[in-house]
Amino acid sequence: MAHEDSQTNAISDEQIVLAHGGGGELTRKLIAERFLPKLTNALLDPLADSAILDMPPGRIAFTTDAHVIQPLEFPGGDIGRLSICGTVNDLVVMGAIPRAISLALVIEEGLPLAVLDRIIDSIAAAARESGVAVATGDTKVIERQRGDGLLITTAGVGELRENARIDARRATAGDAIIVTGRIAEHGLTVMAAREGLKFQTELRSDVAPLNDLVDRLYDTGADLKFMRDPTRGGLAGVLVDLAAEARLSVEIREESIPVSGVARHTAELLGLDVLSVPNEGKAVIVTAASDADRVVQACRRHPLGRHAAIIGQVGDAQPPLVELVTVAGGRRLVQRPYGEELPRIC
Amino acid sequence: MAHEDSQTNAISDEQIVLAHGGGGELTRKLIAERFLPKLTNALLDPLADSAILDMPPGRIAFTTDAHVIQPLEFPGGDIGRLSICGTVNDLVVMGAIPRAISLALVIEEGLPLAVLDRIIDSIAAAARESGVAVATGDTKVIERQRGDGLLITTAGVGELRENARIDARRATAGDAIIVTGRIAEHGLTVMAAREGLKFQTELRSDVAPLNDLVDRLYDTGADLKFMRDPTRGGLAGVLVDLAAEARLSVEIREESIPVSGVARHTAELLGLDVLSVPNEGKAVIVTAASDADRVVQACRRHPLGRHAAIIGQVGDAQPPLVELVTVAGGRRLVQRPYGEELPRIC
Repeated sequence: MAHEDSQTNAISDEQIVLAHGGGGELTRKLIAERFLPKLTNALLDPLADSAILDMPPGRIAFTTDAHVIQPLEFPGGDIGRLSICGTVNDLVVMGAIPRAISLALVIEEGLPLAVLDRIIDSIAAAARESGVAVATGDTKVIERQRGDGLLITTAGVGELRENARIDARRATAGDAIIVTGRIAEHGLTVMAAREGLKFQTELRSDVAPLNDLVDRLYDTGADLKFMRDPTRGGLAGVLVDLAAEARLSVEIREESIPVSGVARHTAELLGLDVLSVPNEGKAVIVTAASDADRVVQACRRHPLGRHAAIIGQVGDAQPPLVELVTVAGGRRLVQRPYGEELPRIC
Repeated sequence: MAHEDSQTNAISDEQIVLAHGGGGELTRKLIAERFLPKLTNALLDPLADSAILDMPPGRIAFTTDAHVIQPLEFPGGDIGRLSICGTVNDLVVMGAIPRAISLALVIEEGLPLAVLDRIIDSIAAAARESGVAVATGDTKVIERQRGDGLLITTAGVGELRENARIDARRATAGDAIIVTGRIAEHGLTVMAAREGLKFQTELRSDVAPLNDLVDRLYDTGADLKFMRDPTRGGLAGVLVDLAAEARLSVEIREESIPVSGVARHTAELLGLDVLSVPNEGKAVIVTAASDADRVVQACRRHPLGRHAAIIGQVGDAQPPLVELVTVAGGRRLVQRPYGEELPRIC
């Protein structure tokens, strides 16, 4: 009997069991011993039903993301870093300064605690990097399914800058379209990892918090009219949204779009269009043409914006379509991906 | 060929497919045609990366809950109503007025669209009932697993009342402990539905938004020192937390705890302790003994508080344990459930 007991304990020490999510003593221990020491901050520590935040008067931004990525860990990041950065970036591209993040974990029974520990470490590191607190959370456990392991949903609250005026309808013909760096690296890295491609070590997800970079852009005094992070749907999805919301056409030049050689090669191998592949550390920005150069220069001075470029401009052709001028000089319509090619990429 | 096409369309019209979560055209259609018309409000409609909220100066409350309940629909509610009420109540028991909810859906491939439609209807109804807007959201689809169907994570932002001072450490010996109604109905309903018990039609989940009831309690002018909704872990879990945080003992009287006959009978059949079974429309409140009667009277005038009662008091015995005085006059220690008995109950 003593032997059996110690075996049972050994298993529950190494893996998540259903009781970790029951809201009882084992849930309390999981949170107190494995989460709180890493995530500790004044908002989270009381573990009340809600966190209480002091906010200055003004507008706040509020957003949420569910993360279902497979595999949980990939070159350049993991589901934890992705969850924090994804929500930080959704606040940042609206012109907000992220203040607090909520963290809801749905863990599959059987997830090794060592994996969970690494992901919580990564969440803590990404929160520090982006200067936000994990203010509140929830943990649930579901029965063993197909080994997916972990789903994370984050929400975020940010303080909107007084001068934030992000609205696609402010775009006008002649405005410049800027991307802050090389595209398609997140999606290609995850797809390559999933396919077991050999060269995956060269390719890394770009997952990163954009708040510091965007702070620098606001510092330039440029009028940022529209900003969005090209995640699901990629650059193509953002530009189609921009054209539809602005009711204006968009023209981009293939030769100006920053893509690394390894990303281009990987996309060809996987049969993917780099324009439709998700990014997790990039922004697409619209500014007046007269502001564009200083925005690009400010990006290039930042580690996350070294490859920033003007990739095209807003036009007044109707209907409001997105066109790509190819390297060969041809023109091709850019459409929103239909939706099937990249499941569980973020 | 025409016949095959119409069959394909028929299938995708009836069930969720992976492409609904790809972030492309099919995701856009799902949101535009099935979610937005029901959830429409000024915060959500722009479908930007973040919703923008005007908040008065002051403190805000921020909370999150992941909902993994099985079955998705049960007598008295469904996962949609549960998600809205759960988050509303987590704000309310901190003394906040709920202002906005985020809604993140992780849908399993194969979920019938008819089920999803009913749950979105229920979300819309619960949001109206509690006067909050679904301000922002996200939708992901995962591969067919075990038929679990749908996970919903909500987060909420509320405006903290100026006079909200919810803190277990403000409890003192002699304070009254109040529960706003009959306990254990949510958890027993879900367990009975899962076990296929015949008498389940008599038992209904108590899932409901508590903001209107708590407004009435603040209207009395009573000093609400501590408030918590006894969800996972039930009344026992809240009282153990209260004793630990207040560093004071708690004594409750079994004869004073409101429990319906059918709930008591169901708990006996299922081998469950009503004190540990989750509730989704109740609050446990601590006030000075001198305030207790008017709080109970205010509860009883409200449809959600008709069975409110004073169930015990805070004491100064050490160590800070929770004791139940049984109907027979005996005493028994109330402990936090360990965690295994009630998986996927909320």
